[in-house]
Amino acid sequence: MLAEIITIGDEILIGQIVDTNSAWMAEKLNHAGIRVKQISSVSDNREHILAALAEAATRADIILITGGLGPTKDDITKKTLADYFNVGMVLNDAALENVTRIFEKYNRPLLEVNRKQAEVPSNCDVILNKNGTAPGMWFNSDGKIYVSMPGVPFEMKYMVEEEVIPKLKAKLKLPVIIHKTLLTVGEGESFLAEKIADIEDSLPPNIKLAYLPKLGQVRLRLSADGDDAALLQQAVDLYATKLVERVGQSVVAEEDIPLEKVVLNLMAGQGLTLSVAESCTGGYISHLITQHAGSSQVFLGGVVSYSNQLKQSILGVKTDTLNDNGAVSEQTVREMVEGALRNFSSDYAVAVTGIAGPDGGIPEKPVGTVWIAVANANKTVIKKFTFGNKRLQNIERSAVWVFFMLITLLKEYKK
Amino acid sequence: MLAEIITIGDEILIGQIVDTNSAWMAEKLNHAGIRVKQISSVSDNREHILAALAEAATRADIILITGGLGPTKDDITKKTLADYFNVGMVLNDAALENVTRIFEKYNRPLLEVNRKQAEVPSNCDVILNKNGTAPGMWFNSDGKIYVSMPGVPFEMKYMVEEEVIPKLKAKLKLPVIIHKTLLTVGEGESFLAEKIADIEDSLPPNIKLAYLPKLGQVRLRLSADGDDAALLQQAVDLYATKLVERVGQSVVAEEDIPLEKVVLNLMAGQGLTLSVAESCTGGYISHLITQHAGSSQVFLGGVVSYSNQLKQSILGVKTDTLNDNGAVSEQTVREMVEGALRNFSSDYAVAVTGIAGPDGGIPEKPVGTVWIAVANANKTVIKKFTFGNKRLQNIERSAVWVFFMLITLLKEYKK
Repeated sequence: MLAEIITIGDEILIGQIVDTNSAWMAEKLNHAGIRVKQISSVSDNREHILAALAEAATRADIILITGGLGPTKDDITKKTLADYFNVGMVLNDAALENVTRIFEKYNRPLLEVNRKQAEVPSNCDVILNKNGTAPGMWFNSDGKIYVSMPGVPFEMKYMVEEEVIPKLKAKLKLPVIIHKTLLTVGEGESFLAEKIADIEDSLPPNIKLAYLPKLGQVRLRLSADGDDAALLQQAVDLYATKLVERVGQSVVAEEDIPLEKVVLNLMAGQGLTLSVAESCTGGYISHLITQHAGSSQVFLGGVVSYSNQLKQSILGVKTDTLNDNGAVSEQTVREMVEGALRNFSSDYAVAVTGIAGPDGGIPEKPVGTVWIAVANANKTVIKKFTFGNKRLQNIERSAVWVFFMLITLLKEYKK
Repeated sequence: MLAEIITIGDEILIGQIVDTNSAWMAEKLNHAGIRVKQISSVSDNREHILAALAEAATRADIILITGGLGPTKDDITKKTLADYFNVGMVLNDAALENVTRIFEKYNRPLLEVNRKQAEVPSNCDVILNKNGTAPGMWFNSDGKIYVSMPGVPFEMKYMVEEEVIPKLKAKLKLPVIIHKTLLTVGEGESFLAEKIADIEDSLPPNIKLAYLPKLGQVRLRLSADGDDAALLQQAVDLYATKLVERVGQSVVAEEDIPLEKVVLNLMAGQGLTLSVAESCTGGYISHLITQHAGSSQVFLGGVVSYSNQLKQSILGVKTDTLNDNGAVSEQTVREMVEGALRNFSSDYAVAVTGIAGPDGGIPEKPVGTVWIAVANANKTVIKKFTFGNKRLQNIERSAVWVFFMLITLLKEYKK
């Protein structure tokens, strides 16, 4: 069963927003056993939308459309869908009730433009929008399914999870697709590929291996399709085991989770706590951790000691250390991590100090110089890195290595 | 002049990565006066890539392609392009030299798969990859321009900025497109639309207005196209001024910058410093600020006081305050912000404490309850919010309101 995703909006085509909806929908569809053939982003233009719909219908059975359902004049998706299906517009009572309810809740007057949001093409089934005013629309036409949803992510997500996927599953006999992902850190894509070439060559035709590199990390993804979920799972697990044996300790997870979640799972499982002392990463490490529900079980908190004064007052870094070695040095990062362990009373601590750039480099310490420390009560491990000259990349790479070093230390001391 | 962007990679279609390259390229093309007609993501499949290339060529003059140039077997873009143009592959000396240099630099053996990266279709001009091993490729064919680049963002970005855009500008006579964006906070899209309906109706046909909503913010974007840059700019500025007068103080910026950059610009301009005390936002506010080069001029640092102990030890929140009112309360957020001002010696401070969810809510303080405080030496402003039950959204909304409240206070005290 093939699907296509069409996202509508000039803001995507002029690059003002990144289309995150498509990846999210694609993942949900894949997990339901529906392959996404193509993702297309088109403008808020009648002819262009009509052409995209017609093209998608030649390739796919299910067409998910987001965007262009707002109350304002640049939003023309709904009217264009009516033209595409050659039907008129009707006022939908349930949708109007929903809009009215939302405006009453927020004590806002119901404007004419908002009332219009309850009008839909006459051939659709309305999908109620529990998180907003624009209704979703489900169309059956010529053996194809079209679903139009708002572009606002949390409105669309609710509809896909609660309405669209369950309805698709009920209507269609779906094949099985099984993915398994190994998360590796610290090795390059081509180095990994060479190391596992013979395993890759031995894969049966219905199992594919993909390499997904991302600063400092490579995900190895096995995908299998067929009819028998249990058999597919068995085959995928077999090859995953072979890969793990071959690649060794740079595999930090055997599921598709973010690196920081590996840390949280390892620590929560042992009842351990963590604190952080961030300089050049500026809160990014804390943010990555605290995105995850339940992180407060592990994460006590930390300091973003951008100024030297905060390194001294909160972490107890000595004035002499800063004067003699500078803020970006082995001695400073050691005192930072040990200060965090002591002052924040955590089982483990991490610290980072470096020059993220683009300014602030000197010949002995160019932009991209980063010192990382991870510690528990028994051991402090410190490493120096020389990354590049891109600020955001230096911040991201630092976080990757912080987590990798921490995972390595956690494994060494695993009870 | 029309362009299309094709991103190639199964990882996009199964939703494992978000395609951020397209938005970035679209923005660069637009600024160069090239409109992006469509963005398509297709799989690592020969026929599908061939079809996408042929379709794009019917609509656009310039086709930018990213992805599928890695050294591994799932990467087939290069071979497929050779088939599309019906040419053979040749070894490119400059590309080989580049690969060799990179492997020498990192002291890695040059593998056969890496050597192959220097092979390209015989009809292309190679674009050297200064940040990686896969060469970019420029093709002129049947009056169209095709450019194939790696999918790794920092490799692609360098090529677009340094090679592709300059070369396109040199070759083509480009029309002028002018954008102007107003960033508004705190008002809904339809409320804004009703307020400015008559201005929108009075726009000439070559100027368009788009509404770009994002949690708590709406960007109003005016776009004009034509031949005379100065005249277009004048017209766009005129309508922007009318919009600003009408919408009033919820306009926080008259350029397309992130909200936190508005704060940094305002504070840097007056030589003011900032510190933060974050609980439920978990480092996100610090991260947003410190993403930006030069933020250290304003940002002294802060604490992520996830645990109560850190709220007490670093910020000086009183035990009685926590016992009597709880961590999520007006009294606690007041002591947090005033503790940050005092202990971190900054001109301004912000503090947030709340229940991000999904767990931790109680009837009197449901998930989504957030207290925010902003302060300078003269004034502390505190507000309570009741957001929803989505963790990441609660974190993001909190950050939006922290910055909006801070901007409001900064304007009140502007020298």
